[in-house]
Amino acid sequence: MTMASNTLQSRYTAVRGRSVALAAPLSPEDCSAQSMPDASPTKWHLAHTTWFFETFVLEAHEPGFAPFAPAFRVLFNSYYNGVGAKHPRPQRGLLTRPALHEVLAYRADVDARMARLLSTVAHGAALCALIELGLQHEQQHQELMLTDILHLLSCNPLFPVYAAACDVVPPPVAATLTWHSFDGGLIEIGHKGEGFAFDNEGPRHRTYLHPYALASRLVTQAEFAAFVEGGGYQNPMLWLAEGWDWRAAQGLNHPLYWHRVEGEWYCFTLAGLQPLEGDQTVVHLSYYEADAYARWAGARLPTEAEWEHAAAQGADPVAQLFGVAWQWTQSSYAPYPGFRVAAGAVGEYNGKFMVNQYVLRGSSCATPPGHARLTYRNFFPATARWQFTGIRLARDLG
Amino acid sequence: MTMASNTLQSRYTAVRGRSVALAAPLSPEDCSAQSMPDASPTKWHLAHTTWFFETFVLEAHEPGFAPFAPAFRVLFNSYYNGVGAKHPRPQRGLLTRPALHEVLAYRADVDARMARLLSTVAHGAALCALIELGLQHEQQHQELMLTDILHLLSCNPLFPVYAAACDVVPPPVAATLTWHSFDGGLIEIGHKGEGFAFDNEGPRHRTYLHPYALASRLVTQAEFAAFVEGGGYQNPMLWLAEGWDWRAAQGLNHPLYWHRVEGEWYCFTLAGLQPLEGDQTVVHLSYYEADAYARWAGARLPTEAEWEHAAAQGADPVAQLFGVAWQWTQSSYAPYPGFRVAAGAVGEYNGKFMVNQYVLRGSSCATPPGHARLTYRNFFPATARWQFTGIRLARDLG
Amino acid sequence: MTMASNTLQSRYTAVRGRSVALAAPLSPEDCSAQSMPDASPTKWHLAHTTWFFETFVLEAHEPGFAPFAPAFRVLFNSYYNGVGAKHPRPQRGLLTRPALHEVLAYRADVDARMARLLSTVAHGAALCALIELGLQHEQQHQELMLTDILHLLSCNPLFPVYAAACDVVPPPVAATLTWHSFDGGLIEIGHKGEGFAFDNEGPRHRTYLHPYALASRLVTQAEFAAFVEGGGYQNPMLWLAEGWDWRAAQGLNHPLYWHRVEGEWYCFTLAGLQPLEGDQTVVHLSYYEADAYARWAGARLPTEAEWEHAAAQGADPVAQLFGVAWQWTQSSYAPYPGFRVAAGAVGEYNGKFMVNQYVLRGSSCATPPGHARLTYRNFFPATARWQFTGIRLARDLG
Amino acid sequence: MTMASNTLQSRYTAVRGRSVALAAPLSPEDCSAQSMPDASPTKWHLAHTTWFFETFVLEAHEPGFAPFAPAFRVLFNSYYNGVGAKHPRPQRGLLTRPALHEVLAYRADVDARMARLLSTVAHGAALCALIELGLQHEQQHQELMLTDILHLLSCNPLFPVYAAACDVVPPPVAATLTWHSFDGGLIEIGHKGEGFAFDNEGPRHRTYLHPYALASRLVTQAEFAAFVEGGGYQNPMLWLAEGWDWRAAQGLNHPLYWHRVEGEWYCFTLAGLQPLEGDQTVVHLSYYEADAYARWAGARLPTEAEWEHAAAQGADPVAQLFGVAWQWTQSSYAPYPGFRVAAGAVGEYNGKFMVNQYVLRGSSCATPPGHARLTYRNFFPATARWQFTGIRLARDLG
Repeated sequence: MTMASNTLQSRYTAVRGRSVALAAPLSPEDCSAQSMPDASPTKWHLAHTTWFFETFVLEAHEPGFAPFAPAFRVLFNSYYNGVGAKHPRPQRGLLTRPALHEVLAYRADVDARMARLLSTVAHGAALCALIELGLQHEQQHQELMLTDILHLLSCNPLFPVYAAACDVVPPPVAATLTWHSFDGGLIEIGHKGEGFAFDNEGPRHRTYLHPYALASRLVTQAEFAAFVEGGGYQNPMLWLAEGWDWRAAQGLNHPLYWHRVEGEWYCFTLAGLQPLEGDQTVVHLSYYEADAYARWAGARLPTEAEWEHAAAQGADPVAQLFGVAWQWTQSSYAPYPGFRVAAGAVGEYNGKFMVNQYVLRGSSCATPPGHARLTYRNFFPATARWQFTGIRLARDLG
Repeated sequence: MTMASNTLQSRYTAVRGRSVALAAPLSPEDCSAQSMPDASPTKWHLAHTTWFFETFVLEAHEPGFAPFAPAFRVLFNSYYNGVGAKHPRPQRGLLTRPALHEVLAYRADVDARMARLLSTVAHGAALCALIELGLQHEQQHQELMLTDILHLLSCNPLFPVYAAACDVVPPPVAATLTWHSFDGGLIEIGHKGEGFAFDNEGPRHRTYLHPYALASRLVTQAEFAAFVEGGGYQNPMLWLAEGWDWRAAQGLNHPLYWHRVEGEWYCFTLAGLQPLEGDQTVVHLSYYEADAYARWAGARLPTEAEWEHAAAQGADPVAQLFGVAWQWTQSSYAPYPGFRVAAGAVGEYNGKFMVNQYVLRGSSCATPPGHARLTYRNFFPATARWQFTGIRLARDLG
Repeated sequence: MTMASNTLQSRYTAVRGRSVALAAPLSPEDCSAQSMPDASPTKWHLAHTTWFFETFVLEAHEPGFAPFAPAFRVLFNSYYNGVGAKHPRPQRGLLTRPALHEVLAYRADVDARMARLLSTVAHGAALCALIELGLQHEQQHQELMLTDILHLLSCNPLFPVYAAACDVVPPPVAATLTWHSFDGGLIEIGHKGEGFAFDNEGPRHRTYLHPYALASRLVTQAEFAAFVEGGGYQNPMLWLAEGWDWRAAQGLNHPLYWHRVEGEWYCFTLAGLQPLEGDQTVVHLSYYEADAYARWAGARLPTEAEWEHAAAQGADPVAQLFGVAWQWTQSSYAPYPGFRVAAGAVGEYNGKFMVNQYVLRGSSCATPPGHARLTYRNFFPATARWQFTGIRLARDLG
Repeated sequence: MTMASNTLQSRYTAVRGRSVALAAPLSPEDCSAQSMPDASPTKWHLAHTTWFFETFVLEAHEPGFAPFAPAFRVLFNSYYNGVGAKHPRPQRGLLTRPALHEVLAYRADVDARMARLLSTVAHGAALCALIELGLQHEQQHQELMLTDILHLLSCNPLFPVYAAACDVVPPPVAATLTWHSFDGGLIEIGHKGEGFAFDNEGPRHRTYLHPYALASRLVTQAEFAAFVEGGGYQNPMLWLAEGWDWRAAQGLNHPLYWHRVEGEWYCFTLAGLQPLEGDQTVVHLSYYEADAYARWAGARLPTEAEWEHAAAQGADPVAQLFGVAWQWTQSSYAPYPGFRVAAGAVGEYNGKFMVNQYVLRGSSCATPPGHARLTYRNFFPATARWQFTGIRLARDLG
């Protein structure tokens, strides 16, 4: 991949600026707290995405490289063992220093150095690809910033508001659910190799699909409320055994962020506590909950190949592919045939997580515009609920 | 499936008798203890397999059915929610009553009633199939009896002996490891529908395989010792991230049951503590360890389709398919296309475990003779080490 | 202390024989299981008390000493760091080997060697004192055998019976509760130095008591049921903060072993499940529950000095001092002024537990006859419920 | 207690102002984070101490009372069950809202209302006593602010500095340790009833002391380093059994905040990481560590009555009574004879913590000037290390 310098620079500026903009409604305290080990403070996201450019781009390519602050190399490493030590993940919220303004200064410094690097004449495809990887990486963290902030604010009994509803909650959709059939057969999925993709999206390869049908839209909050009120959380026959034990151990009876107030359902959102809107897509479901709902509805979750094959044929029959909710598939996150991890530390990006996680397809209302793709493979453990995760139903045919 | 009554009766007698024989070398105390939540007491296995026949066969088919002891319905239910309450699994070792001799009396009673039932004229295919399911179920528990006893005895610093080595440890195999290539393509796997199979083995279906190679034999203890001594347990780049965290949290540096005594490796077996035999197949590995070893060896684990496709072509090129060690595959345990769970309580047998487990193929030295099949799908979580689990290496071709 | 050999021998025989008699109603399985880390298997008690004589008496005094089984030195050490390694306490229930009959053989062997030692002419006061300590130690374990068996059987939904009620449940007592006043002043408590006592009972020393009153008897099950049904377990103002958190975390609403069956209270005892007898003394209470009840009753728990001072004046005004239930005092278990630990390993007997435990006085229905004393200091953590622990109320005067 | 309004007002202003001054060196992030459940965020301390005045003083005495923010009643309640619900303690660090500036506004509002209340003519002894209790309560939290901040900063690998060493680290003291004897006898301890005291300091009462000796000063860092380097943390015979298990489970080998850097000891302090100063008093010790050191030194910890009796005779023989380090006593925290809890919610202040805690006497370098007293009873669990806790040795005499 090559790209004109000025194009890459303007893309760099846009993506990097969006991260800072997402943090703008937040106080320094908001940006520093960590509500659970799975989530990270906003400040940490802002620093870690900067660390990525400093460590993987500047250190290798900047003449006379010197780190902005040597201690940041450890503090803001996430999981790259090839790069050295890292701060324990569950303690990221204790890093009250550096302060938010210092992290913003770190960003400004790295951005200035990146601009200098980009303005020099000779930088080839490999460097451009690495920078693009850094920007895609930052976009992933932009989604996490929103989901992590939502989780943090949900722990506050004051139900704080991050932004106005019109900015952060997608409009309800009231279409009738219909089913669309696909013949399957010997098809191909995976990234072709043009344009950016993460390593886990390739290689493009053949796979065989049996005939199947997909639902035209995602499951709504009203539909899921029927499952809740019909005793879906109390019937073990609907659940995977592990899901049932997980549900029971935590005493769960409804989706994350749902609250029952004086006989009515409410949902905590980035716009604060809102009455449950039935036509809205249900989100914040674990794999277990999605699977149990599908069984209750006489359906199942799609495989990722089914999803991609249907999606490749266009959004006409199958709507809400992107921009609403990540869609759980029944596919365990595994390497595609012929998958090779990238050389060096960035090779730790994807491959080492290929166990006990499930693939989600599409994208959500929190995904940065332009970030998702037909071949994009998001993945989370079956217990994850704090992402914008929903349900696309599937069925066997014939 | 139908079967002459006397044939079924003699098979019933043989399988049921083998369970009691396996317990013969053990004291009442040995049979009653539970060494970890994943394992069960021998006495519990003896009772639960009997409960299966009483609950699913006699209760439905025996005229004037009355339970041997009503309390056993709860005590010896494993996980069938459709049947009612169950005793908490981690507390099975506290059931010192009923005593071993009472459980043996329970077995004798059910066996006598089953014999009466089998001697009556009219019993059709459905009943025969249910009885065969009970016998296959009992054979699965026979393997668990051995693995659970091994684990229990391993917790005793006296290193007790269950049986002579010649009876319980397979002879070492010293063949050179060679690679055998397979073209793949559009093939079929899964059970055809003739003879007994568990529901999870079907339906037989098409799948597409890319060219691959399989190792001619399983990894040996000497080969794995080279990984151990070459720092394999200390290098995070070889491990799945989750596997590395699991390894570190438990401080693991070698396979389960290996002991370092005065500079030499020993292995605890059903025949007691034995010097490590290099030509023996390495067993008692978790998925994480198997995967890390494969990466270290420049290979990978096979998929279950690759394994079955190769195995279907005969044991000539690919040896040690059965009777030595279960072979981890990189395939997550998931329903085959078109899979339907059986109706009723026995439908809880397999389908509800299809999450966060990995498929193992073949069979082990502890598997009852005649129990395994080409299409057999064993499954365990990635952390499981107390089964006889080993490594068959695979590679991409072309 | 000195004692004629034949007297000591007959006492040795009687005490040692009682341990075996207590185990007689139990199966090998019953004797081998461990229901929680705080409890030990009967078999372990039988072996450990034997280990005490072998380690502290025979090893030092038997000519040509050789251990019965070298491995037992580690297996049956409880907590004597001075003696060497020990088997992890929570894993005592996994020691299915040695079998019960082997432990009984161990007892017989040590008893025979002890008899030989006792029959030799020259053994002085120090040796006699050590043997007496071993016998007192064994009597302590006899009480634990009963409490631990009760706990084990309570985990079995079959509610097994250990013995007939007439043998193990003290008869109900229906006296009216009256209050008896004591002036206090500068008094003395602690053991005088004649006859056997544990090191923690001395030295006898002065202490100052303010005027106080003690209840004439222990709290009954009917009285405690009034607390339960009056919301005592739901009112945080009655509880110590730590007790309230403990109660809430475990969801406790009544004493250990109480069951509500169709609107009536039952209590699990060594004689099986029995209807709650109101005039019976309430037992199996933690310190927290005892303290909360006392506050609810407008009283408090006595100090150990108050208890001993009152008890020294005879059982006339203050009944149920011994043989019914251990009585929680508000005194933290601490060394008396001038306390010195004994030299050598037996010095680990008492002193090292003097933190975060509370003193109980008197004795219970499970205490061996003749074992308790006016100055006896039993001690358990505030959470302990599985002992026969009850409540003697006290009040300030003047 | 009565006091001229203007005196009370000026005292109120001084104490309240000091809390804000202590927070001045900290960023909003620093003030919002919680490093462990035992510690609280600075912001929470600032709000909770304000809540105390609003809830216990203004609500009862202010005409037309309306809360500053109704939600704060729950958010900033610590443990007063009588007042209603409370935010879960381990989640105080997630309260990023209200922001620090809002909490400071809350303080200003309550201070203004308190000033109005104090300026009115009629307020009697009970109200003055309640206000004084609020000020003493705030001073206690001022010490916690410093210890909690130290703990938070210690979790940051950057070793941040709170203040210059001259302001927060007491100067080293190099006196020789000498022993001072006390006859004991029938003496009195406890608060007499003049001037302010917490309820747990009374009533003043008689107690009997045996002859004892106290060390002239506290144990130094050099002395404790000799214990560390002499294997004190590796010898179980020096430790209480519970202390040894605690030490082993956490792998502790030295006091909290000590670091070994290139063969030298350093200590993390409010002034950052500092080389260990041998003549400085050792602090941040648990009860277990203090007790083990005392045993190693052939001494013991004093009882609280011994400490108070000696301290009452003046600091001449026994130095470092106040202002250096809290001194562990071997006295469990228990009610004095005749102790009665105060009526109402403030009665939850002390009495409900009287279990499984140990009394500390004196005061530390972090205690506000003028806060401590001869009769002051501080208390913490035996595991607490993050306070400024040190060792005064004692010995039996005669």
